[in-house]
Amino acid sequence: MGIAERKELEKEAMRNKILTVAMKLFLSEGYDKVSIRKIAESIEYSPATVYLYFKDKTAIFNSLQKIAFDKFYDTLTTSLKIKDVKKRLDKIGELYMKFAFENPEYYDLMFIMSAPIDPVKEECYIDDRALKLLSDTIAEVFEQKGITNGDVEATTFLLWSFTHGLASLVIRKRLVMVPEAHIKGLFKKIFDMLDERFFNK
Amino acid sequence: MGIAERKELEKEAMRNKILTVAMKLFLSEGYDKVSIRKIAESIEYSPATVYLYFKDKTAIFNSLQKIAFDKFYDTLTTSLKIKDVKKRLDKIGELYMKFAFENPEYYDLMFIMSAPIDPVKEECYIDDRALKLLSDTIAEVFEQKGITNGDVEATTFLLWSFTHGLASLVIRKRLVMVPEAHIKGLFKKIFDMLDERFFNK
Repeated sequence: MGIAERKELEKEAMRNKILTVAMKLFLSEGYDKVSIRKIAESIEYSPATVYLYFKDKTAIFNSLQKIAFDKFYDTLTTSLKIKDVKKRLDKIGELYMKFAFENPEYYDLMFIMSAPIDPVKEECYIDDRALKLLSDTIAEVFEQKGITNGDVEATTFLLWSFTHGLASLVIRKRLVMVPEAHIKGLFKKIFDMLDERFFNK
Repeated sequence: MGIAERKELEKEAMRNKILTVAMKLFLSEGYDKVSIRKIAESIEYSPATVYLYFKDKTAIFNSLQKIAFDKFYDTLTTSLKIKDVKKRLDKIGELYMKFAFENPEYYDLMFIMSAPIDPVKEECYIDDRALKLLSDTIAEVFEQKGITNGDVEATTFLLWSFTHGLASLVIRKRLVMVPEAHIKGLFKKIFDMLDERFFNK
């Protein structure tokens, strides 16, 4: 390995180290309480070193969001290999829940924690590729099933809100009133019900 | 006013002061980072004084949850004056969203923030009276409309998850991709759609 190559790897490792500790701090202390100084202290470097990699706190948060949203979108697009569009839609729901439960920290960062989301500045942002994947799939199901009274936009936001609601109630332990042995069956019933009411002509 | 009475009022005021500052700390720092010492420092009293009012941090959190859930339930029960049961159900949805937007701090405490919810210990808990009000109302609508294929439990959790999802996405600014002028109309469409699909025979 040449010197240039090794340096590149070292830079990459340092960048990842900053991101890992920043994510932990954002989630445990909240966005507002985290500073470049705090991040630097946690990895025992000077703030100046951190500034070599990121221009400010927002840039760090934004990089984390990008990693999370990319992983999320990559997960959902594995559904595209399913030819049957209705089954593909079911798969998107299943993959969404799986992503949320397997990556609760990313999920928190993307959709739950307080953060200065600003679509105009595009610094802190919501990546809506996954939302577009969902709405395109819903439109295709409607078309293929000959459902003419379906409202694609309203159905998209209904399904997203519902799935997010369910995922975040579980992540935040607010469904404790449902016995654990019963929860899987209940979720299946709800998804089947949505299916029957919205995607059968 | 007698001395005993005045003392009682003073105690009440002190208790409220502790609760107010504790709520702010829980929401800004997260449950884990808050301590009785921190709460005491914020109101410039000794920890011993705070312990005169609450046995520990959990007791404070629990009192706040009780206040929030009582206010929430009181809000939802104003729907009971509506005789038409279907209109009452619509009203519950409307009051739920209104409560969440007008009391985002309580809403956060009840359903969003990380907290050691434990239904067995009943120290940190989820009050499910509101959920029961919702499921009773759904059962009544099904009965009155002669809907025999409705699943009360699944419909209850579907509607709650959906409404919580929508409310928390708004509170956490994750619906920024929907133009503000458009959002009220979109919400109305979604609620109408749910209505049509689940509560029409």
